[in-house]
Order: sequence, then C-alpha cells, then structure tokens
Amino acid sequence: MTQPGILNATLQGLRVLEIGHFVAAPFCTRLLGDLGADVVKIEPLTGDPVRQWGEQVDGRSLWWSIHGRNKRSLAMDLKAAEARDIVLRLVAQCDVLVENFRPGQLDRMGLSETTLKEANPKLIIARISGYGQTGPYRDRAAFGVIGEAIGGLRHLTNHPPGSYDLPPVRVGVSIGDSIAGLYAAFGIMAALWQRDRAGGDRAMRTLDVALTESVFSMMEAMLPEYGRLGKVKQPTGGGIATAAPSNAYPTADGGFMLIAANSEPLFARLAELMGRPDMVRDARFAGNAARVAHAAELDALIAGWSGTMSTAELEAKLTAADIPSSRAYTAADAAHDPQYLERGMVREVMDPALGPVLHSGIVPHVPESPGAIRWTGPDIGAHSDEILSGAGFDAAAISSLRQKGVVG
Amino acid sequence: MTQPGILNATLQGLRVLEIGHFVAAPFCTRLLGDLGADVVKIEPLTGDPVRQWGEQVDGRSLWWSIHGRNKRSLAMDLKAAEARDIVLRLVAQCDVLVENFRPGQLDRMGLSETTLKEANPKLIIARISGYGQTGPYRDRAAFGVIGEAIGGLRHLTNHPPGSYDLPPVRVGVSIGDSIAGLYAAFGIMAALWQRDRAGGDRAMRTLDVALTESVFSMMEAMLPEYGRLGKVKQPTGGGIATAAPSNAYPTADGGFMLIAANSEPLFARLAELMGRPDMVRDARFAGNAARVAHAAELDALIAGWSGTMSTAELEAKLTAADIPSSRAYTAADAAHDPQYLERGMVREVMDPALGPVLHSGIVPHVPESPGAIRWTGPDIGAHSDEILSGAGFDAAAISSLRQKGVVG
Repeated sequence: MTQPGILNATLQGLRVLEIGHFVAAPFCTRLLGDLGADVVKIEPLTGDPVRQWGEQVDGRSLWWSIHGRNKRSLAMDLKAAEARDIVLRLVAQCDVLVENFRPGQLDRMGLSETTLKEANPKLIIARISGYGQTGPYRDRAAFGVIGEAIGGLRHLTNHPPGSYDLPPVRVGVSIGDSIAGLYAAFGIMAALWQRDRAGGDRAMRTLDVALTESVFSMMEAMLPEYGRLGKVKQPTGGGIATAAPSNAYPTADGGFMLIAANSEPLFARLAELMGRPDMVRDARFAGNAARVAHAAELDALIAGWSGTMSTAELEAKLTAADIPSSRAYTAADAAHDPQYLERGMVREVMDPALGPVLHSGIVPHVPESPGAIRWTGPDIGAHSDEILSGAGFDAAAISSLRQKGVVG
Repeated sequence: MTQPGILNATLQGLRVLEIGHFVAAPFCTRLLGDLGADVVKIEPLTGDPVRQWGEQVDGRSLWWSIHGRNKRSLAMDLKAAEARDIVLRLVAQCDVLVENFRPGQLDRMGLSETTLKEANPKLIIARISGYGQTGPYRDRAAFGVIGEAIGGLRHLTNHPPGSYDLPPVRVGVSIGDSIAGLYAAFGIMAALWQRDRAGGDRAMRTLDVALTESVFSMMEAMLPEYGRLGKVKQPTGGGIATAAPSNAYPTADGGFMLIAANSEPLFARLAELMGRPDMVRDARFAGNAARVAHAAELDALIAGWSGTMSTAELEAKLTAADIPSSRAYTAADAAHDPQYLERGMVREVMDPALGPVLHSGIVPHVPESPGAIRWTGPDIGAHSDEILSGAGFDAAAISSLRQKGVVG
C-alpha cells in the first residue's frame, strides 16, 4: 500500500464510528481523522446541533468546516426501529466507537455494552461525559462551563481575590470539552496498541472520560498543596505567583504584550531597555523572591513604560533585546503569523460550500507522514449511501430506509 | 502474565525514556506511566528544576509527588563524556523517547536523530517545544505564558474590550504545557499502533509538538470566522457570546456560582426560583437571541439575586430546581467532592518523603484495567543503579561512573 520512502498516514487503517454531538466527541474524532483514520459520524437527520453554533455563511457553519473535516456523515434517526441494526452492522466493521451521550442513553436505545460486544468482541468504546459513567453526579447535565468550574479552572481564571469585583472569566472557547476529547483520543490509541500489538492482549476496553476530571488532571500542585498544607490555590490575574516580572502589559493602542523577564539577565535587559538600569539595584527587585513580593509595584512601572508605545513599537524593541515576549494574539495576528504559515498551522482550504476557508493545521505534526485535510466538514448525510452500501445494504434497502425517514 | 478476568494495564509493556524538564514532557510521561508504561526519566544530578516549583515540605515538592509518580529516576550529567553512550544504550531498549529541549540541543549533545535511529531503528521520538522544530521562531525561548498568548488563549481570557482596564488573566496553571504534553501522548500512541499492529508499517516516526500549536488547535471557529468574515473573536468575560443566561454570579460570601440556564425551560425555572416569573414575559428576555442581546441587564438581575445568599444556600436552591449550576471549585471544594472521591479522582497516597498526600486520579479511566499510582515522585537518582544495571553496566562500572560524577 505504501509508496517507497513514504510511510502510511499515522492512523491509516483505523476505523472509527462516532455517535456524538457538540464538541467533545467530535473533537476526539477530528483528531483521529486528521491523522488518517476513517471516521463515520452518525448524526441526526437535522444534523449535529453544533452546525448551528457560531457564524454562518448562507446557512453553513464556518466552525463545522474544521470540526467535521475528514469525516463521513451518515444521517440517521437513531430512534427509528431500524436504527439499532444499522449501528450494530457498522460496529462490527470498526475498531472504535466514540460517544458523548448522557450515561445510560445508548443503553436505552438498545445499544448496551453487552449488545455492542456481541456485535464486535474487540470493540474499543470511548465514552465522554460531564462527570463520568459512575458516581452520584453521573446523571447531571454536562455543560462545558460547569465542567470547567468543577475541574478547578474557573476559580483560577481571575484577578486576585479582593482586587476587583467582576466574575472569573470563561476562557473564550470550550477548552474543557476539547481537553476531554484529546484525552479520549489518547486513551483510544493506548487501548488499541495493547489490543493489537504483538504480545498484546487482544482485549476490548471501555474508556470513561469525564470533562471535569480531564480539566482537574491539569491542576498541578493544587490538590496536594491543599491536602498537606491547607493552602487553597488562588488566582493571580495576569501574573504568575512564583515569578516576576511576568504579566500582560498594556500598549498605547489598547493591546496587551506578554513579557516574561523573570530571570536575572532578562530582568537586567528589560531594565536597560526601559532606561531604568537603577531598577536592578533597587532592593525591592533584587532577585526573583523580592520581585514577586513587590510584583504589583514592578508591574506598574513596566505598564507605565509599555503604555507609551504602540504594540508594534514595543514588540520590535523587546524582540531586538531578546526578551521573551509576545502580543496576546488575536485571530488576525494568528492568521498572518509567519511561523504558523510556514508550518501549515494556518492554511487555506477549499470548502465546496463556503469557498476558500482558513483552517488550523494538524497536531501533532508527524514529518514522516503528515496528517492531511482530505476534505472539509461534509453536508448532513453526504456519505449515507456509501456507508450503508459498505455495511451490506443494497440500493433497494437504502432507498426503503430513506423513504421511511430512517436515513437521510 | 494476566490473571483470568483481569486484563493487562493498558500500557503494560511500553518502555519510555524521558529526557525532559519542567512541565510539558514530564506531564506527557506521567500520562503514559499512569496507564502502566515503564518510564525512565533522565534528570540532572541536581534534579529536574520543576522540583523547586510550588510549595515545599522539608525541601520536598508537593507537585513532584504527582508530577514524578510512576517514573524511575536516573540522575546523570548529560554533559559528561560518558553520557552519550549511556543514553544510547537506554534508547536501544525503549519504544519511545520524549524530550523538550530547545530544538537542536540534543543534536549538540551528540544525540542527533541519525544517531538515535542507529541505536534503535524503530524508535518513536516525541519532541515538544515552544514553537516547533522548524520555522523562523524555532530557536526562541519557550515560555508557557507566551505560547498560550500565541495560541490565542490569552486574548480570549478577559472581559469584553472596553469594559475594564485590567490585563487578560492567566489561567492559573501551565495549561498550554499540559495540553502539549497530552497531544504528545496521543501522537506517541498513534505512531506505536501503526508501527506495531498486524499490518502496521514497523516504522519509526518523530512527533513535532509545539506548545503554541497545541493551544491554537483548540480555538474552534476563531480562524475560519476571521478568514471568511474578518471577524476578530473577542473575549466575553464570564459569559458566552451565543447563550444567555450563562455566567458566574456572585454570592454573599464572596464566592461565584456558575449558572447555565440558557434554554427556555431552564430560564423559566430560574425566573420562578428568583420569584420573578414576569422575566419570562419580558420582551428583552424572550428567547435566547433576545437574552443574548440584553445579557448585561439579565446578568445584573441574576447577580442581584444571587448576591443575597451564601454559596451553600444558593447551591441548594439551584440543585433542588434542577438548574445546571456549580460553585467555582477551589482546591477545598475538589478535595471533598463526593463524585471525585467516589471515582478515585481524589485519593490519599502514601509518599515516603511527605507522608500522606492527596493525588488527583488517572485520566482516562479504563474500568477493565484501571491505571495505578504505583509510587509517588521518586528522589533524584532513586533508580540509577537498577536502570544502569538493566542497561548492562556492572557494579564496578556503575561505581566508577558515580565516582566520576557522571551519575548520581
């Protein structure tokens, strides 16, 4: 199958069935599809509701162009009597099932784990939910913002207690869903490796990925510091509790510049650049510990300097002085960033429905067999016929299913 | 090897060598170790500098107890003449090498890709860096906060433009490093599956994971909406641009409660609970689009109500009314959460150096063969002898290496 010198796509040969919606499960399968897996997505006849989110062009979702890329769409009414048999035929053909219904919902559709295993004894099943498949919260509705709050992220995304009275902010994307989807993708590949390798155990496994826990797993020392010392980790605004100066500083044109000059040589270079070499000799700023203790005063001095310059001017000065720094990238900054462009992380893709669209590239980058954007998010049911045909339904059967409103 | 009815640990049999430091690479190997991989970490004779971060007890890091768990530590001076041979002997024995030096640094240590492949032609090499192994920014210092800013996260983590003059906040953990580490873990397992499965290609691969790109990949519709419509996505504070009410609302005791009542039945229940059933008939709040347009007024009304109650009282009322909600969990909330406790996401572990310590559990949860915390973060060089012995060095050779200061 492979050409000389060219390896397989990293996940070529992997067959994935998604019965998911919104963000977490579809993000998981996007990652698998980006690396070359064949992803069949079962979605309602009216489409995954995420197709309605965000900006639309002529009724077409720009997000979907990315979120649905490299997937084949089978539109189906999962509540129809015929649906269960179709799903099980597809399950028999695939390596992995990814779903993010509320716990128990697939069971109620006649797709219990026992049934799925009968259809495919080696199936890897990845279940993504708000709180997990077990425990007292399992039946609660899974809203991303609530999962992030329980994961501990929301409390920490704020200015220090008492410094102002606005609420902690939401990271502007559903980061908890995406992290959970990425954890599921990792777990799927781990289970597949142990299943399929020489010396592996040929065993099915289920993955129980909770949005809350996915976020919580990234909270570093928050939990052990509380348990051992009673310390409740608090938000630190734009800065870092343990290093200074490191913050986002205002510019004259309303932007913000991240400056991380929290080492002795970097701080000395910054002081020089500010025309304030005396700062290095100031006892308040002698060494990182002193700077952290006087971070507010130090930040005010830097902000007073940074605020006199445009973002571009400040950026040029900091770069020339080799001080780690960056503007807080907007969409516009990212779209024109030479590094992103050079590495294909910003690329123009032709979407049949939308015309040329900018897509973010593929992570991780695998130089020997880079992933590909084979196609953009498809229309609802764009691949229904070929998928059903591949599962053994003939043209008459497919036509009948369509007439009954089972598939679209 | 397996007992009847008990499967192998998901990553049992996987051999990983880490030459990493700080957050991203060690987080990657923690994930692999949690699922059962054998992880050998090479660290300087003075230890990974991350051991100095955060709160210490008797000179021992609480974060390290988690960050280093399930790993074996080999303390070594990588600049010593003998180091290269030792590393290559270990490389010959392992499936995966994970590193997060600046691009090119391993080459300068005599550990180029060519050399590594000679030692192990099937080696999977995961490289994690700030900006990637190629491109005009490859040599820049990789600071997490700057990577997150270039990834687009920092700009969006703020209140709406013009609403206040404080800088965008840092999520209180190195989330970009952890996300990059998780992407590397996913990529490693994908490469291993294709390498090792029946029908796989038996090929080595390198993974080039950039912190910036890992974050940027999660920015949803930000890029295509800019490219097609010129829309620059802006931060939305505590709320969501497309749904209302959904925000963090203050409580009388200084906490914040997330409330997501952004559907018609949920909003009606909230209005009833507030004793303001008239809100449902208010034209400003009729339907989600109207509520989004008047989100500030709506949020002010809800905040006026929420602020009259303690967090506990408000939480009880919202739960009784079945309205999706949660306090913004602190470390204390998480430590006592019944769901986390039931699912082993908060567990007490005996650390030989620290005594009982709370650890976060293992993600993903694999019920058939759950991961384990086999041991806590080890002392520097705790496993040097057994690792070197396993690599073919006899006691005299190890003693000699230690006397020369090559290993510790």
